[in-house]
Parts: sequence; structure tokens; C-alpha cells
Amino acid sequence: MRDSYHEALDGVVDDLVKMTGMVQVALSEATSALLEADLGKAEDVISADSRLDDLHDDLESRCFSLLARQAPVAGELRTVVAAMRMVADLARMGDLSAHVAKIARLRYPEHAVPEGLVPNFTLMARVAQEMVATAARALNERNAHDAGKLADSDEEMDELRKNQFRVLLSKDWPYSVEAAVDVALLGRYYERIADHAVLMAGRVVYVVTGLLPEGGNWPVA
Amino acid sequence: MRDSYHEALDGVVDDLVKMTGMVQVALSEATSALLEADLGKAEDVISADSRLDDLHDDLESRCFSLLARQAPVAGELRTVVAAMRMVADLARMGDLSAHVAKIARLRYPEHAVPEGLVPNFTLMARVAQEMVATAARALNERNAHDAGKLADSDEEMDELRKNQFRVLLSKDWPYSVEAAVDVALLGRYYERIADHAVLMAGRVVYVVTGLLPEGGNWPVA
Repeated sequence: MRDSYHEALDGVVDDLVKMTGMVQVALSEATSALLEADLGKAEDVISADSRLDDLHDDLESRCFSLLARQAPVAGELRTVVAAMRMVADLARMGDLSAHVAKIARLRYPEHAVPEGLVPNFTLMARVAQEMVATAARALNERNAHDAGKLADSDEEMDELRKNQFRVLLSKDWPYSVEAAVDVALLGRYYERIADHAVLMAGRVVYVVTGLLPEGGNWPVA
Repeated sequence: MRDSYHEALDGVVDDLVKMTGMVQVALSEATSALLEADLGKAEDVISADSRLDDLHDDLESRCFSLLARQAPVAGELRTVVAAMRMVADLARMGDLSAHVAKIARLRYPEHAVPEGLVPNFTLMARVAQEMVATAARALNERNAHDAGKLADSDEEMDELRKNQFRVLLSKDWPYSVEAAVDVALLGRYYERIADHAVLMAGRVVYVVTGLLPEGGNWPVA
């Protein structure tokens, strides 16, 4: 039988996994809302964001209680500290998904992403989605190995963003200024979601090994 | 005489104050680089960012050591937890200042901000600068009162960003698509710097009162 301290700690990690699942849904729905100009999905993502914020507050205060009452050390302290950071990453990824959905809603019934950039955004969203899934798996299995893969995916994301800028800033951008502004901000949101996935996986490495991952270009926050 | 534990805790807070000062310099130089197309200042901000990242890593590990060795409780635990978050806020504000400087460098010797939007960005930068200064003062004086003011400044920032969008998306945007993209991203960076200033001040309230500030629209992370 587990004591109540370990139960509380496991409960925090379980809820982090659950929160990661909610973020995956938010991101996937936000992408559908964006690429299919689906107003219902956009509204769903926007209204579901407050549930993520509530879970953030709840998990944060449970982590604080664990620190205050149990004074964990070593691996358990790393877990609580990493959990506090991951909770912030996840809430932020939820916010960014809601930002994507808000642009979709703002342009409805038009599509915010102009036709020529649909393939680019489809790929960008797919890479982001895979990165969040990898981070979720790493967390769920306490698997430090997968985190390395994320650095490669993040490079792919950077490359996609560069392609986007090439199209945006070519002499013959055929769409409106409004479309250019939407594309620039949407690209930024997906890129930041990817950054947070990399950060999350780095925190798993930290929990498992006690070290920050080396070699990659780990974003600060 | 202070014992070594309290010295370590005070040292963390002193270095946070120092780091806030470095961020204020980065933001101010980045704004000069941007509005005066000053390449030297842009390079300064970009290269100084790694010092902020180093300070981030150092402070983070000192906070972790305090948790591991001292198992602080109550107000001292709140201070350590808030410090870990503020360190991340400050590193992020430094990154965002470097992003502003990078756009200035990319467009040099041209100005990235088109003439018609210089007054808007001058104001936006001034509000961001004041918000960081208020957060710094709140931290330095452990003053929960100033944090309330930041919610008002943040509304001013939102209003400035809305004005920016009005100009950007008006039928007769007289500048290039490139300029529109730069303005959209720069506006986003200043807005995020302001968000982190609000978050920082909220963390000071939390240290002083043990409660998160009420009534404002506190960004999650």
C-alpha cells in the first residue's frame, strides 16, 4: 500500500498526464478550426481553456502543499519542481491553442490561412502535435530517451517557419496584409507550442536523470 | 548576524533584483535599437542575452538547493517558489527583448517600424518599460500594493495593441507586407513582456500575502 504522500505525488503526475491529453485535444481542435474554418471547434477550444487554467491552479497548489508538508528530497523533489514547471508549460500551450482558435473565429466564415500556405500549416500543426505527443509519452513512461528526438522535430519546426517567412516576404505575396499578419502570428503560436513541448521533455529528462539535457538548444522558458 | 540559510535566500532575492535591472537595460536598448535603427545596440542586447540565461540557470539551481537542504516553509517557501517562477519570467523577458533587437538588426540600416507607427511603438515601449520598473520596485520593496497598478498598465498595453491592429488592418496600409509582419510580431513581443511584468508583480503579492492577486486578469504563465 502507498502512503498518502506518495499517493499525492502520483496523483499530481497522473493529472499532469491528463492535462497533457487535454492540451493535445485543444491543439488538434484548434488546428481543425483553423484549417477547416470550423466555428464550433474554435468555440470549443476557447471555452475549454478555462478548464486548463483551473487544472493549472489546482495542480500548482497541490505541488506547493507537497513541498510545504513533505519536504521532499532528491528524485521526489525534482518531480515536484518539474511538475510545477510542466503545469505552466501546459497551461501556456492551452492558451496558445486558444489564440489559434481565436484567429479562426475572427476570420470565420473565411479561412484565416490562405490557400498557398495550407500545406505549410498542415505540416507545422502535425509536427507540433507529434511533439506534444512525444512529450506526453516521455512524461507518462518517465522516459528520458524520447526527449532527444524532440530537438530534431524542433529543427523541422524552425525550417517550416523559415519557409513561411520566405513566402510571406517574397516580392509577390498574392494575399492581403491581413492574411500576412495572421500567418505571422499563427506561425509564432505553433512555434511556441513546439518550444513548450521541448521544455516539457527536458523536464522529464531532469526528473529521470537529475540533469538538464545536453546538446540541444533548450529554450529557457 | 544572519545564518547561511538566510544569507542564501537573501542572495537569491538580491540577484533577482539585479537580473530585473539587466532586463530593464535589455528592453531599453532593444527599443533604442528598434526605433533608432541602431545596429550596435541591437548586437549588445543579443549578446547580453546569454548572461541572462546563465543567471537564470544559476538562480534556478540555488533555489533548488534551498528547497533540498533547508525544506523552507510558509513565507520562505513562498519566496523560493516565487523566485523560481520570476527567474523564468525574467529570462523570457530577456529573450523577448533579444527578439526585438533581432528584427532591428535584420532590417538595418532601414527602420523596422514604419514612420506612421513610431508613436504607437514609442508608447508601447514606454508602458512596457514602466511595467518592468514597477515589478522591479515591487520585488525590491516586497510591496504588494504596486502590483495592482500593473493591471491598469496592462490594459493600456492592450489598447495600444488594438490601435496597432486597426492601422495594420485598415484598407489603406501604406507600407510593405514585410513591415506589417514586423509590426505584428514586435507588438506581440512587447505585449508578452508586459504580461511577464504582470506575472512578476503577482508573484510578489503571493510572497507578501500568500494569496494570488484578485480582480485582475492575471495571465497564467
